[in-house]
Amino acid sequence: MVIDVVALDGDDTLWHSENQFVMTQDRYTELLADHIDKPTLDALLLDRERANIEVFGYGVKGFTLSMIETAIEVTEGRVDTGVIMTIIENAKDMLQHPVELLDGVDETVRQLIGDFRVMVITKGDLFHQESKLARSGLADLFWEIEIVAEKDEATYQRIFSRYDIDPATFVMVGNSVKSDILPVLALGGRAVHIEYETTWEMEHAEADKAHDGYWELDTIRDLPELLGRL
Amino acid sequence: MVIDVVALDGDDTLWHSENQFVMTQDRYTELLADHIDKPTLDALLLDRERANIEVFGYGVKGFTLSMIETAIEVTEGRVDTGVIMTIIENAKDMLQHPVELLDGVDETVRQLIGDFRVMVITKGDLFHQESKLARSGLADLFWEIEIVAEKDEATYQRIFSRYDIDPATFVMVGNSVKSDILPVLALGGRAVHIEYETTWEMEHAEADKAHDGYWELDTIRDLPELLGRL
Repeated sequence: MVIDVVALDGDDTLWHSENQFVMTQDRYTELLADHIDKPTLDALLLDRERANIEVFGYGVKGFTLSMIETAIEVTEGRVDTGVIMTIIENAKDMLQHPVELLDGVDETVRQLIGDFRVMVITKGDLFHQESKLARSGLADLFWEIEIVAEKDEATYQRIFSRYDIDPATFVMVGNSVKSDILPVLALGGRAVHIEYETTWEMEHAEADKAHDGYWELDTIRDLPELLGRL
Repeated sequence: MVIDVVALDGDDTLWHSENQFVMTQDRYTELLADHIDKPTLDALLLDRERANIEVFGYGVKGFTLSMIETAIEVTEGRVDTGVIMTIIENAKDMLQHPVELLDGVDETVRQLIGDFRVMVITKGDLFHQESKLARSGLADLFWEIEIVAEKDEATYQRIFSRYDIDPATFVMVGNSVKSDILPVLALGGRAVHIEYETTWEMEHAEADKAHDGYWELDTIRDLPELLGRL
């Protein structure tokens, strides 16, 4: 069936995000370099994030609380409170960081809206995602915007119901196999993976490259041509 | 015009919320009682929250980061990291606290859904609000659920457009004059205020009691009777 709705992921598909988490975490490990080496701290922070995700959800504020908690734990309470203050200041910097669109996004979105109903389905902190959308300069172009807490089958099913979308006419485009590809394919939709320069450990997953509703692109610039062929 | 859509606020309208913030803040001021008296600390924390709301948005995680920041500031860095850890643990307790419905909510919602399209419009942290809705046992009863970052005229206008709602057939029910009443009346909708036992300083506002689309109730139990008369 012909594509009707094209859904785009936000973080690391429309705009850069993970690179800021990586940079903030690099700063964090430098702040604690007198106490613990970076690989060990990175691993302990990831453990803490995994444990906290069920309570905090995704986003900068939960990440920041996990960093503070881990800093106190690994130093057995000896971390300087000035370091904790710097961790919070870095969080504010992340939340206020200018939105940097990925290469080709602006032109491609403007091209797609002529041919499809184009929506955003993005995961994370509602306030931060709305703020990024507003600052992206793209928000008014989209047919609909859905900011969700988790991108699993139940979430996509809810969106299909809300907008009366036939999954067979729906394509999801994003950088996370776990969040953007697998649940959509499972529901009978199609999915396009565009890998970002880095993938957060917790988003790692493998797609079945032989699935006939699945494609991989190097850049969003190639999306209109691909969709034109479907 | 007759009412078609009844929208209910979440925090402090369907379930208790502010009482947990008050309790957590009481614990916080006790933790720092050796450094600073409660009224002074309460005032400084409120200043910090006001300054941070534009960056963090609403919810427990931003509240927690503001508490940590204020604790470091007021002690000039001398706060024990054990206290900071306790502040984070208290945040986790809040986020996992059982959802306690207000008196009469369950029966009233079940009664209303027979006569109206009943939706929830609630403000705050997406992840926490979804979690509370899921645990409320009510989520499946609602026609639609909208979790929003801010409840202002633009937000209500967006909801009216999304669901093709005529404001003249819409009534909002909630405990915050600022978030639930004023923007809805300004858009030509009707609004019912049910005061909660405490109101957060940042939600204080005054309604025009003479407005002919505005009502005040003591309990949600009186809502079906009021709506029946409109």
